[in-house]
Amino acid sequence: MIFTIDRDALLNQLLIIQKGLPNKTPLPILYAIKFDVYEDYLLMTSSNTDVAIQVMVDDATLKIIKTGHVAIPGRYLIDIMRKITSHHVEFALIEDKLIVIKADRSEFKLRLMDVEDYPEVDFLDLDDPVVLDSQLLKSIIRETNFATASSEKRPILTGVNFKYRDDSLYCVATDSYRLSQKNVKIRTNNTTFDIVVPNKSLDELSKILDGFQEDVDVFINPNKVLFRMNKILFQTRLLEGTYPDTMRIIPTEFPVSIPFNKEDLLAGVERVSLLSPKDRDTNYNIIKLALRADHVVEISSTNSEVGDALEEVIPAGDVIGPIIRIAFSSRYLVEALKSFTSPEVTLHFAGEVKPFVIKGDRDPDLMHLILPVRID
Amino acid sequence: MIFTIDRDALLNQLLIIQKGLPNKTPLPILYAIKFDVYEDYLLMTSSNTDVAIQVMVDDATLKIIKTGHVAIPGRYLIDIMRKITSHHVEFALIEDKLIVIKADRSEFKLRLMDVEDYPEVDFLDLDDPVVLDSQLLKSIIRETNFATASSEKRPILTGVNFKYRDDSLYCVATDSYRLSQKNVKIRTNNTTFDIVVPNKSLDELSKILDGFQEDVDVFINPNKVLFRMNKILFQTRLLEGTYPDTMRIIPTEFPVSIPFNKEDLLAGVERVSLLSPKDRDTNYNIIKLALRADHVVEISSTNSEVGDALEEVIPAGDVIGPIIRIAFSSRYLVEALKSFTSPEVTLHFAGEVKPFVIKGDRDPDLMHLILPVRID
Repeated sequence: MIFTIDRDALLNQLLIIQKGLPNKTPLPILYAIKFDVYEDYLLMTSSNTDVAIQVMVDDATLKIIKTGHVAIPGRYLIDIMRKITSHHVEFALIEDKLIVIKADRSEFKLRLMDVEDYPEVDFLDLDDPVVLDSQLLKSIIRETNFATASSEKRPILTGVNFKYRDDSLYCVATDSYRLSQKNVKIRTNNTTFDIVVPNKSLDELSKILDGFQEDVDVFINPNKVLFRMNKILFQTRLLEGTYPDTMRIIPTEFPVSIPFNKEDLLAGVERVSLLSPKDRDTNYNIIKLALRADHVVEISSTNSEVGDALEEVIPAGDVIGPIIRIAFSSRYLVEALKSFTSPEVTLHFAGEVKPFVIKGDRDPDLMHLILPVRID
Repeated sequence: MIFTIDRDALLNQLLIIQKGLPNKTPLPILYAIKFDVYEDYLLMTSSNTDVAIQVMVDDATLKIIKTGHVAIPGRYLIDIMRKITSHHVEFALIEDKLIVIKADRSEFKLRLMDVEDYPEVDFLDLDDPVVLDSQLLKSIIRETNFATASSEKRPILTGVNFKYRDDSLYCVATDSYRLSQKNVKIRTNNTTFDIVVPNKSLDELSKILDGFQEDVDVFINPNKVLFRMNKILFQTRLLEGTYPDTMRIIPTEFPVSIPFNKEDLLAGVERVSLLSPKDRDTNYNIIKLALRADHVVEISSTNSEVGDALEEVIPAGDVIGPIIRIAFSSRYLVEALKSFTSPEVTLHFAGEVKPFVIKGDRDPDLMHLILPVRID
């Protein structure tokens, strides 16, 4: 196996492949990146228990002198490529177990792992894709993934539920204290699907999408989903089990609605949270929100040890409904607000002990819901 | 106690005072910042086991309505000031145990600590200073402090030794594996001194110096040193004990001298270090440097598990002396090189098992020394 390539071209692809390397694995061969060098192109593959990534490299600077298949220790290779400053890099297999990497006046000899040990990665067949706009997919991840559960108590909640039927894609995430929901119309040839994608996989996918503008082809089977972004294949396992029906916890009547300038509300909530006591269950800061009769909103916290904080926020428009007083974890509201692109958001309240809903004036498809805590 | 002040003016000073707050202390009162509000100015004080800081605030925006003395929980106060966006802030003592902070539509009530409990901080008398240029002091810290010991095995080595005699200031730091030495001519009225300043204190001092351009007045007694930067007093304890005589370990004869472009050498060393094995004692990467007969320098590492790295570096000028081969911790060389402002550095070798010395063409007062390790 011998080839030469431009350092930047290779490094950019290696940084994608890196997201498939395991942090820790009982199967050391997975610390390697598999290189399959064919006559006209090079395939790089990485995989761990969650995801598998394959990138096809056929860059104009790639010159293949001899084909071959090797497993190169991943982190060392990437560290080396990062530190190399010359453009031209040569890879050559010597002695069967050693790869020589030459770049300008640098020469690295890396001990290879046994490529025969690398497990076969079963990428799904590339038939009949669901086609998604990459920027839409990226927004969906940004708007929902943060609301998934981080604890493994209910594993199904550590992923985002993607449900497709009647030309609509319903995306839901919840950790059972708050919920994020994005519904979008899309057209596909596909039949219905209902899958739960692990939040960690979505984090990695989102980073790869940063460098990608075109459409994404999505291939789904009951256990896996494969995202094809041009020459990149990103496959992840799905979470097993039935995602809970979240529709029934969303109130249908909202007697109180208060519109806010998003940044004003965010700044006020963040300041008040500085002194707020922690919720025993979730360790998050609890704050109170009260609509006064004069339609000014008070956000406040009381902490017997430290002190009190009080913030007056003027609504950004007409308030609907009677006075209300509700308490909740400030972190949930902060994270929800940050996910909106809208400059104006409206809080819709169903009652003092019922979940409340946040919507943005420029994000019609997006809804966040937060469960209150009881005030003494 | 009542006063109003511009938020930015106060926050800037609080960020200096913050460096004197303890991370952890058995004396909870030290988590407070002491405010002494007089008729025309305000003093803020913080202290921990290492340092004590006092800032005098007499900003034009400060309006003192009522004098007083209070101890305000430091981290909460600073968090609040960071998050406030309005310019005008009002502080008012109510009920003896509560301070109210008002800013625009925000209101914070912070529970005070008992100001009577705040220990008396004994700042040195401001007589007979040694006057230092603030930028010189900052460079000295940057060039020496990193070479101090981080372990407490030999406590005296966790500080920088400042020795003054015959119009010269000798600054030395060593962790017994490498050494940094800076000697500068300065004129003062002062008699001689010989002190060791803790590295953590110097780190904090260095950050405060970032925002300061004028001369620094230094006041010294056998146990403490006080740095006065205009309206800031920064006092630190000194390390007890006698600093070792380091002159005797510096070789006097250097048969081999090799000049390098600093950036070229640094890049080569960093690349080779990627594969180098760790030194058992220090956990640092060991690399080899060899001067070949053709006056090309080879930097290399051999790691039986991972592989080998080899880098050729062309000296930046005439090489003096016979071929040589030496091994050492790459981290020491990397840190030493980074402390030079010089674009060209010269390595001076006394022998394969003797310490070698690094000098920079534009840093005449600075010298680094590194102990080699034995090569098998």
